Amino acid sequence: MIKVGIIGATGYTGIELLRLLLRHPQVQITLATSEKHAGKRIDNILPSFSGATDLVLEELNDDAITSKCDFAFSCLPHQSAMKHVAHWYAKGLKVVDLSADFRFASAETYAQWYEPHSKPELLSKAVYGLPELYRDQIKSAQLIGNPGCYPTGAILSLVPLLKAEAIIAESIIIDSKSGVSGAGRSASVDSLFSEVNDSFHAYKVGKHRHTPEIEKELTKAAGQSVVISFTPHLVPMDRGILTTMYAQSQPNGPKDTASVLKILHDAYKNEPFVKIMPEGILPKTKEVRGSNRCHIGAVYDPRTNRIVIIAAIDNLLKGASSQAVQNMNLMCGFEETMGLQALALLP
Amino acid sequence: MIKVGIIGATGYTGIELLRLLLRHPQVQITLATSEKHAGKRIDNILPSFSGATDLVLEELNDDAITSKCDFAFSCLPHQSAMKHVAHWYAKGLKVVDLSADFRFASAETYAQWYEPHSKPELLSKAVYGLPELYRDQIKSAQLIGNPGCYPTGAILSLVPLLKAEAIIAESIIIDSKSGVSGAGRSASVDSLFSEVNDSFHAYKVGKHRHTPEIEKELTKAAGQSVVISFTPHLVPMDRGILTTMYAQSQPNGPKDTASVLKILHDAYKNEPFVKIMPEGILPKTKEVRGSNRCHIGAVYDPRTNRIVIIAAIDNLLKGASSQAVQNMNLMCGFEETMGLQALALLP
Amino acid sequence: MIKVGIIGATGYTGIELLRLLLRHPQVQITLATSEKHAGKRIDNILPSFSGATDLVLEELNDDAITSKCDFAFSCLPHQSAMKHVAHWYAKGLKVVDLSADFRFASAETYAQWYEPHSKPELLSKAVYGLPELYRDQIKSAQLIGNPGCYPTGAILSLVPLLKAEAIIAESIIIDSKSGVSGAGRSASVDSLFSEVNDSFHAYKVGKHRHTPEIEKELTKAAGQSVVISFTPHLVPMDRGILTTMYAQSQPNGPKDTASVLKILHDAYKNEPFVKIMPEGILPKTKEVRGSNRCHIGAVYDPRTNRIVIIAAIDNLLKGASSQAVQNMNLMCGFEETMGLQALALLP
Amino acid sequence: MIKVGIIGATGYTGIELLRLLLRHPQVQITLATSEKHAGKRIDNILPSFSGATDLVLEELNDDAITSKCDFAFSCLPHQSAMKHVAHWYAKGLKVVDLSADFRFASAETYAQWYEPHSKPELLSKAVYGLPELYRDQIKSAQLIGNPGCYPTGAILSLVPLLKAEAIIAESIIIDSKSGVSGAGRSASVDSLFSEVNDSFHAYKVGKHRHTPEIEKELTKAAGQSVVISFTPHLVPMDRGILTTMYAQSQPNGPKDTASVLKILHDAYKNEPFVKIMPEGILPKTKEVRGSNRCHIGAVYDPRTNRIVIIAAIDNLLKGASSQAVQNMNLMCGFEETMGLQALALLP
Repeated sequence: MIKVGIIGATGYTGIELLRLLLRHPQVQITLATSEKHAGKRIDNILPSFSGATDLVLEELNDDAITSKCDFAFSCLPHQSAMKHVAHWYAKGLKVVDLSADFRFASAETYAQWYEPHSKPELLSKAVYGLPELYRDQIKSAQLIGNPGCYPTGAILSLVPLLKAEAIIAESIIIDSKSGVSGAGRSASVDSLFSEVNDSFHAYKVGKHRHTPEIEKELTKAAGQSVVISFTPHLVPMDRGILTTMYAQSQPNGPKDTASVLKILHDAYKNEPFVKIMPEGILPKTKEVRGSNRCHIGAVYDPRTNRIVIIAAIDNLLKGASSQAVQNMNLMCGFEETMGLQALALLP
Repeated sequence: MIKVGIIGATGYTGIELLRLLLRHPQVQITLATSEKHAGKRIDNILPSFSGATDLVLEELNDDAITSKCDFAFSCLPHQSAMKHVAHWYAKGLKVVDLSADFRFASAETYAQWYEPHSKPELLSKAVYGLPELYRDQIKSAQLIGNPGCYPTGAILSLVPLLKAEAIIAESIIIDSKSGVSGAGRSASVDSLFSEVNDSFHAYKVGKHRHTPEIEKELTKAAGQSVVISFTPHLVPMDRGILTTMYAQSQPNGPKDTASVLKILHDAYKNEPFVKIMPEGILPKTKEVRGSNRCHIGAVYDPRTNRIVIIAAIDNLLKGASSQAVQNMNLMCGFEETMGLQALALLP
Repeated sequence: MIKVGIIGATGYTGIELLRLLLRHPQVQITLATSEKHAGKRIDNILPSFSGATDLVLEELNDDAITSKCDFAFSCLPHQSAMKHVAHWYAKGLKVVDLSADFRFASAETYAQWYEPHSKPELLSKAVYGLPELYRDQIKSAQLIGNPGCYPTGAILSLVPLLKAEAIIAESIIIDSKSGVSGAGRSASVDSLFSEVNDSFHAYKVGKHRHTPEIEKELTKAAGQSVVISFTPHLVPMDRGILTTMYAQSQPNGPKDTASVLKILHDAYKNEPFVKIMPEGILPKTKEVRGSNRCHIGAVYDPRTNRIVIIAAIDNLLKGASSQAVQNMNLMCGFEETMGLQALALLP
Repeated sequence: MIKVGIIGATGYTGIELLRLLLRHPQVQITLATSEKHAGKRIDNILPSFSGATDLVLEELNDDAITSKCDFAFSCLPHQSAMKHVAHWYAKGLKVVDLSADFRFASAETYAQWYEPHSKPELLSKAVYGLPELYRDQIKSAQLIGNPGCYPTGAILSLVPLLKAEAIIAESIIIDSKSGVSGAGRSASVDSLFSEVNDSFHAYKVGKHRHTPEIEKELTKAAGQSVVISFTPHLVPMDRGILTTMYAQSQPNGPKDTASVLKILHDAYKNEPFVKIMPEGILPKTKEVRGSNRCHIGAVYDPRTNRIVIIAAIDNLLKGASSQAVQNMNLMCGFEETMGLQALALLP
């Protein structure tokens, strides 16, 4: 049983951590903070938790966190996260940070896409929290940079194909579509129901901050610098990211769909949370909603010699909070799937 | 560990039973039927279950059911249900029937709103599966008529107020709003996305078949015949029923909101799945989505001397499948909350 | 050709006025204001108007309005509206005010539900802008208080039944359901897509400010004081209000559905924008979306002797902006239906 | 004034034709057919038309069509369309066919992606009904093959860039996202609200029948054979297609966003229905919903030397029915924009 703090508990990723951890057999939530609702019972702000907790939301106080918790999840915004996390880290807490602050080994890359990093000395201590790629390092890490929502599906899909030299790195195009919860829970005209409902659009074309995070992992897998086109879109739905990826097949690469799927299947056949769809079945976001799953499908198109790979995740779960819990399970020596067995809520 | 069959596994209530029971610690699903998809693996039809089961869907065969199962959930349509259930019952299986066929003690009432009943002798054996009202009878029952989706919230809200003689029975008006999954998973123009999205309407005004089911329980609670106005509406959402109820306060009835809430709170204070909202908080369907909860709120309006009571459930869960599992837990001597602890999926 | 100003042009009712009036054959929009976007071209803020106008949004300036416009639509919030409208009115402009400030003859009623009124002397000059009830007064009015979104459907439905002494005034219950655009276009957590999508709830039970507006008109029609129960709900859709109304039939009132429909049909048979559904057909909000229509259906329930009346409007159109244009047409001697002939956008 | 028949009037494209043509100043609808609802008044089936027409739906009868109509819109399925259209054509009617049957000059291409063509002799008579490319031919045509919903936005976006030799034809990738109305109004489990709501997926990857229609026009523009990757997706919304297109900039092609936009702007500066978004603004489907518009935006990404072009249309309007009316206006010598001036319905 570990004592866990959720820092920033009333945003969407914080709410999901509450939901998952209140039912986790090895966790006791000892502290939850909220700038906006400090002093109020969680179940007064979020009635879905009535009867499940008597916890009162607190203001963010680093000393309270380090004295009450063994483990902290930070749902703070980037830049704010690094300052607080550094304090907890120094006191020996294990930390999963859900911001971008500890996702990059290079302070320069971070500075280029975000702002300058004030705790660069911590970057080499942090492990990128994608268990399917870095399980062993995560097990012994004290600090995890939890992946961004868009990168999770893209990286899981493309890394095995790059490692297998199946696709041409220069040709990769990533067209992603996300549910609105990805925009967070702050008041904003752009995320009002009547603005986004029954509508669809792209945003930040060529400029989204998840681009370097994806490129970093693809570069490692390819053994060469990979530069991608990445276009995010907003879907009028609560949850889910579907990522459609295009890449040219290498001259010696796969020339039918079954061969593409075999590479993916071989890479993930023992993974509890990554499922490769059989030929002819393509993933739907609803089929992973509420679960810690990533579903991947693929099609080889002989007309263009292109491979189309499609990945679906729940952006708040495998794209954020349940992936964070998966990391916690590994860091604490619990069963990796503990508290994460829920199947998708359908319909 | 019991051996369970799900009869009609690829409709929405069947899918929810699969989801819940595949993760239930005391259940082994030994059989699942589907008229439409017999012979196919469940996870080919429903990829959300990939990796969670190797089961192949079967045709409905009563002998297979009685030989492979200790317990059966019937998701068959009414009339078809009674025939098959009678067979399984005779062979000693415990059964929860999700149709209307075993919800009425009176074959006449059933005949008046549905069609004539072909197994009237079974009606006295069946228990109405609303655990908060009939827990003890359910524990010893072999056959349960699982409540309809609309009645669950309405009955749970009004019964305590009638028993407390707080409201005038003749004045009850029930205005209900349901998500589209309540219409089932059969092909139909009326349930197409583009027909119901961004739209709202009432249907079957004064004629809906859940009317007598509600009246039957209110009549018992009131100790006098209760006739209600009941109007169902369709909401462009997947899941959830919000029921808004109006009733005149008795001359000696409650004259403020706190008094109304006290009656409800006293009735349900020990119930794991019924939560009374504090004054000033009204239930939202999303706050119970994915859970076995019923949330109830109320307001007393001094201008009209009317009490407004509002109940929210997930129509596929407390309104159908998780309530069925709650009944199973009681019938089999398991912990009542086993496998039903999930908190609402929000957002 | 009249010169028209839209004051508050980038909220939802302002956007609808722009859309309607840019295509109105007798209107030239000479001014549009926006607190937030002053100085920017309309089509930069609202690309749906690209190519349709070169207008630049201005700050609110009463002198600019009175010098550039013959006619003004105010989409300002209540309290702010009354101050500015008084100025324009004094300069001879014709005005339709879409706030609550000129809907009440009684400054006391206004003060009781809103705040004290600072221009009570104008209340007797203003006409309540429901053309089906007050067409003649509107034609000669200089100032219109445009009805609230909820009252329009409720009043149009109940007034003929009260005038015909068909229903018992004390028994009226009004259960309304509105799309999210009714909450306006200001940043707010409660109206975020992920908060309201796939959810349904009631709000301001017994306290909504449209209550006295409805009661005022019902009282006039009944010739006696009418006090109602009114419950608004939020539907996860952009537009539309469906109002479900319950009332006891008078002892000599209608005892079948056809008789109820006849009263309504007789009242509106010459109205271009109010349509009574034939027996067996109930209105859907989508069937009036994008139009200036009010569709009304009804059912008499012999079991309870209650009449259920159901009305559907587009809350931004017949519930706000197109009703405002209908009023303008009457005030300016144009054809009443000019610019308002669009049929519902379906699906 | 022309006498117009709508053949297949109760599907989504037929409903839109009814809506537009009932308000078109030069059109009298003399006939409307419906296989399913023949014999019933239109407004009984579609109450949004109550008060707007007394027309009764008829069965499909070629002789009735040719005797009652000067002009026919066919909303029949492909294969069925060609047989009936040939009959009307022979009798001298002008026809816009909304199926795929007259979109291809080559019977072979049609046969390869659809089925063999039974009226190949008519293909050379038909004009592809994209007015921005073929205005002059349309003016003198008797038979129009109205474009598919996906091709309209893709072709309008890419043709000017290919003609200007701005992009490399081999590199074109087209990732499209459509609202659910594109799937039509037939009963189907896959289009049920609860299947597609809050979900997103791709379908027919590399195999969709609109592929050759796009390739045909791009090939003409490029002066060389163009083979594309085309991936359609389903968005949980009623209407709208957003198409995201990727292409490498030619060595001498545009190297900033302004240069890309200039090519597009020059191509469409006099077009009433195609609007190029200024730099920094990207189209949203809701901003064209209910209009005959195509909005196009673009971004040049120097990191990859790729151009990303994004087009938004209403799939039922510029993607089907209002484009058909635009063609009718041209064929009949009416003002091209007649009856098509409506601005987008927002929100």
